[in-house]
Amino acid sequence: MTLTELGKKAKETAAFLGVLSSARKNEGLKAAAQALLEGEEEILTTNQEDVIKATMEGMSPALVDRLELTPARIQSMAEGLLSVAALDDPVGEVVSMKVRPNGLQIGQKRVPLGVIGMIYEARPNVTADAFGLCFKSGNAVILKGGSDALESNKAIVKWLQEGLKRVGLPQSALQLITDTDRETTKELMRMRDYVDVLIPRGGAGLIRSVVENSTVPVIETGTGNCHIYVDETADLSMALDIIYNAKTQRIGVCNACESLVVHREIAPRLLPLLEERLSQKQVEIRADKEACAIVPRFAHASEEDWGKEYLDYILSLKVVGSLDEAIAHINRYNTGHSESIITNNYSNAQRFLNEVDAAAVYVNASTRFTDGFEFGFGAEIGISTQKLHARGPMGLKELTTTKYIIYGNGQIRP
Amino acid sequence: MTLTELGKKAKETAAFLGVLSSARKNEGLKAAAQALLEGEEEILTTNQEDVIKATMEGMSPALVDRLELTPARIQSMAEGLLSVAALDDPVGEVVSMKVRPNGLQIGQKRVPLGVIGMIYEARPNVTADAFGLCFKSGNAVILKGGSDALESNKAIVKWLQEGLKRVGLPQSALQLITDTDRETTKELMRMRDYVDVLIPRGGAGLIRSVVENSTVPVIETGTGNCHIYVDETADLSMALDIIYNAKTQRIGVCNACESLVVHREIAPRLLPLLEERLSQKQVEIRADKEACAIVPRFAHASEEDWGKEYLDYILSLKVVGSLDEAIAHINRYNTGHSESIITNNYSNAQRFLNEVDAAAVYVNASTRFTDGFEFGFGAEIGISTQKLHARGPMGLKELTTTKYIIYGNGQIRP
Repeated sequence: MTLTELGKKAKETAAFLGVLSSARKNEGLKAAAQALLEGEEEILTTNQEDVIKATMEGMSPALVDRLELTPARIQSMAEGLLSVAALDDPVGEVVSMKVRPNGLQIGQKRVPLGVIGMIYEARPNVTADAFGLCFKSGNAVILKGGSDALESNKAIVKWLQEGLKRVGLPQSALQLITDTDRETTKELMRMRDYVDVLIPRGGAGLIRSVVENSTVPVIETGTGNCHIYVDETADLSMALDIIYNAKTQRIGVCNACESLVVHREIAPRLLPLLEERLSQKQVEIRADKEACAIVPRFAHASEEDWGKEYLDYILSLKVVGSLDEAIAHINRYNTGHSESIITNNYSNAQRFLNEVDAAAVYVNASTRFTDGFEFGFGAEIGISTQKLHARGPMGLKELTTTKYIIYGNGQIRP
Repeated sequence: MTLTELGKKAKETAAFLGVLSSARKNEGLKAAAQALLEGEEEILTTNQEDVIKATMEGMSPALVDRLELTPARIQSMAEGLLSVAALDDPVGEVVSMKVRPNGLQIGQKRVPLGVIGMIYEARPNVTADAFGLCFKSGNAVILKGGSDALESNKAIVKWLQEGLKRVGLPQSALQLITDTDRETTKELMRMRDYVDVLIPRGGAGLIRSVVENSTVPVIETGTGNCHIYVDETADLSMALDIIYNAKTQRIGVCNACESLVVHREIAPRLLPLLEERLSQKQVEIRADKEACAIVPRFAHASEEDWGKEYLDYILSLKVVGSLDEAIAHINRYNTGHSESIITNNYSNAQRFLNEVDAAAVYVNASTRFTDGFEFGFGAEIGISTQKLHARGPMGLKELTTTKYIIYGNGQIRP
């Protein structure tokens, strides 16, 4: 099948899925979960081949870990599908309905986006997760996973489709692009006639490539250079707990803290305690001159450090003289993801919430909460760091758009 | 000033405007309206130079009409600014706020998009309109108008800025790109560091160029190949009134009807009456074979006609045997703008509303109502025909995004 044929098929299927009842969609999700478990042996065997090949080609252990499936991981993919089945269906909700003076009833109804293209790296669990969320929200999905996971993805897609087929639903609800040629991916990014939105999920390079090449609208999911600002009025022990949590609870994720900004007044008390606390996890602190003068063991930060998403046991640290300076620094270097202030000052808290430009802005909490599950959405397809359409964690609702529905009785425009 | 400097300035100004009170913004809009009226003579003189130049260069009368300003048009631009001042400010509204089990209060607050780039044709009134809507919604705007209106735009921007200056507000809230080089426009489309969203307003060619070249997120505003489907149960006189209105009330607009789809059962009764009614305005009807057999005076439609936005006294016409066929035809050829069904059948009305894929779908009303003012928004910056972010008429609210604000008291992630 050519990419155009695949796109046409997806568009036709989207028209069918867009008006499918929640009951039928849930039936499909449950059958797909069941089939996935039945296919476990085949999926694991195929995945091992991908893993061996990737290892021999020199893939790093961290990436191999994301590529490798286990019985527990397949179980968790199946459970993910079941939990999406249990969520409310966002499609069909009438968000508003008003009557105009001429008697026209104008409403705004939630409808699927249509065809969603997912471009992601060699993480086969994303294949099932993305299918589940797109399917429940009435969208057809075209999947382009990392080529190192191709055989694993083929097996997963085969079993998910098998589940759909058993309950009489179209297998074309999910389609995998198996051509690993880069030109094919570029062609997908320009299929405006068939693809309504592209969601890239992965590292900064992947996302940049999609943004640069796509004429299909993109929802950028994000890298996170997340900051915590410790105000002069902060509770010291709260600050230490939150920083420790945001930096070390899980280092490889986009909502981990990468940079600290500390008010000059509190720095002499905070920094020695911070050094002690973070040394429990061997965190390297790269600090500006002023901080290094307080704790000489800190490494010296370079200009490059302020913009870095380390995804590692490293933290940059800057001392500032005012809230203004803190906000300016954060707005200059952040990636629009998650930022937090630790303070007991009411006005400073309000100003930080208002003036810091990011998807999620916190007072006195860890940045690690920026997550669809933690926000109570029950699912997450990614975290948007752009301003159009969706900002922050995206659940089912963010995979829909609206359409105006207008009930008249013969109205014409005077 | 280089484009980068202009972008930086816009971004700085956006940070200021984003937290400006409604009262101050309204003061700015009123002062700008006042200044615009004071500048009338200069604006009209400059505009005449643009008009003479364009006429000599062979611009069509219809385009010259859109370029030319009159005292009444300047009055109307000023009134537009005052009416935007009178609208509710969308910024700061907390759309939702929930408390999570761990005590985190998570809210979603409406905030400006930031910096908006408007790319439009030689219609100087758009300069004032776009400024008003962007300013009220807390955004800085960068304007790139058609080069034929450059001198007019310079004069308008000068006086609007003069108004802002008088009340102590930054003139950089609106900035005009005066470099008419196409490369400059392309550079604007790639200024991801400084521009949050681009809104192209104009013909299909302009919009295509922005979509093709932009790496900044785009809100596509649209061409409209709008259909009316006359069901076999339609009230004949209602159908005639609506078609006549949607086709002829104003021909050059995106929500005018361009194509009719008629059920086979009603065609023999409807088409002769339709021919008579539309002949009052010399509308040329380009019909398929079946319709031509009923009314031989109809012209023969070619395949190309189905996809055409005529913006003229021309209408294409297709006869179908079923609602399914009508929906398939419309979904194949429409541009996602506005579509209407004329019917008295409940199920057909519901199916049409559900299954036709467009920004606005009507039952028993003219497509001409798709408009921010008719929808009750009090203003309009364009009509989005894309699915991301905003779909249909866009008012102030559509020029905002949201940000999550989270109030904690020391929460860390377990």
